[in-house]
Amino acid sequence: MEQKQLQSVIEQSIPAWIHLNKDQKDTLLSNSMEVGYKAHQTIHGEGDDCVGVLIIEEGDLRVYMLSEEGREVTLYRLSKGDVCILSASCILSSISFDVFIETETNVTAVLIDTATFSSLMDENVYLENYVYKVTTERFSDVMWAMQQVLFMSMDKRVAIYLLDEMNRSKSTCIEVTHETIAKYIGSAREVVSRMLKYFEKEGIVELNRGGILITNKQRLKDLINGR
Amino acid sequence: MEQKQLQSVIEQSIPAWIHLNKDQKDTLLSNSMEVGYKAHQTIHGEGDDCVGVLIIEEGDLRVYMLSEEGREVTLYRLSKGDVCILSASCILSSISFDVFIETETNVTAVLIDTATFSSLMDENVYLENYVYKVTTERFSDVMWAMQQVLFMSMDKRVAIYLLDEMNRSKSTCIEVTHETIAKYIGSAREVVSRMLKYFEKEGIVELNRGGILITNKQRLKDLINGR
Repeated sequence: MEQKQLQSVIEQSIPAWIHLNKDQKDTLLSNSMEVGYKAHQTIHGEGDDCVGVLIIEEGDLRVYMLSEEGREVTLYRLSKGDVCILSASCILSSISFDVFIETETNVTAVLIDTATFSSLMDENVYLENYVYKVTTERFSDVMWAMQQVLFMSMDKRVAIYLLDEMNRSKSTCIEVTHETIAKYIGSAREVVSRMLKYFEKEGIVELNRGGILITNKQRLKDLINGR
Repeated sequence: MEQKQLQSVIEQSIPAWIHLNKDQKDTLLSNSMEVGYKAHQTIHGEGDDCVGVLIIEEGDLRVYMLSEEGREVTLYRLSKGDVCILSASCILSSISFDVFIETETNVTAVLIDTATFSSLMDENVYLENYVYKVTTERFSDVMWAMQQVLFMSMDKRVAIYLLDEMNRSKSTCIEVTHETIAKYIGSAREVVSRMLKYFEKEGIVELNRGGILITNKQRLKDLINGR
């Protein structure tokens, strides 16, 4: 990747760029590079070394928590243009928790070296401020996830998942296992299967071997709105 | 409260103070005042106007979420010297969730006016950076709460609550209702009562009308450590 392209990606995603001096810009650029990940790879896990700051050019990342028994709760997703800070969480002294980050699709990203980014943050309060601001936005996402997992009834959660996936894939046929849905919404496979069977009986979906066909989108929306 | 005392409280809790110029310091001081709250008062709730930034001089605040059905989950607690930013969450555009804040004890605090603080944040990147940094620390607390509520078994949660309260009150006799414990650990009263009866049968506690007497502290600790 050319220096110019690299700069354009960084500049667009990190507005604090304009507050860096020439030396700092050069340092940042010469310690960044384009990286590629295959789909369904774990790129950051508990106790891992810091991968670095990632700016997503193409593809989707999922950030989640994992219990000792292997239960997953999705915290948020990142896509094109988003900056992933928690993949370099070791540079933030105020972050004392671990999350997992995995690719949902093939991902192309610009990776900024951890040590470089960390020392630039120390030098430049605008960059530091940018990092904490982005992290606060993620805090907001996590609160949403927490409310959903803790407080929302299971039928709503499954309905939201199906609608989200339908909009994302632009298809009424969702190719996904019940196990995967359970992981995404922080529940157990059995619970999801039971709920989907109920949805089928109600004429909302049809369950096939390959996945789930949404046959009544309006009913799904009604469920979410509590009607 | 004298100007000098006010400054001393602000200075000690907000390190960005040294990066403010004289005008900004004066503005901050003349828009701050000492306030008092009685115990068990809600000082910030869903959809409320912004109370302002609070610096706690004495007492404890509890920050929690509330479901539509009235279920509470404690996110974190703040005490002497801590700065409560979420009581002025309206100044943070990246925060889009609501929390409740209540006093656990009588509280004395310095209250900084929302609009003043907000415009100083816009003027001074160090102050803005301080705010986002503190918020990121709270993010860390919330992740801990989330892990506890989502992933930790109920016996551990009740045991941790009892030990925390014992250390806090410096007494083995904890005067608290099962309802209150349930609120704090994000569970139902029935579940807590059942667990406490089990603890009593195991000789860990004695249940009286007034509260809970811890009779075997070591067993409580063993429970937490999974022994």
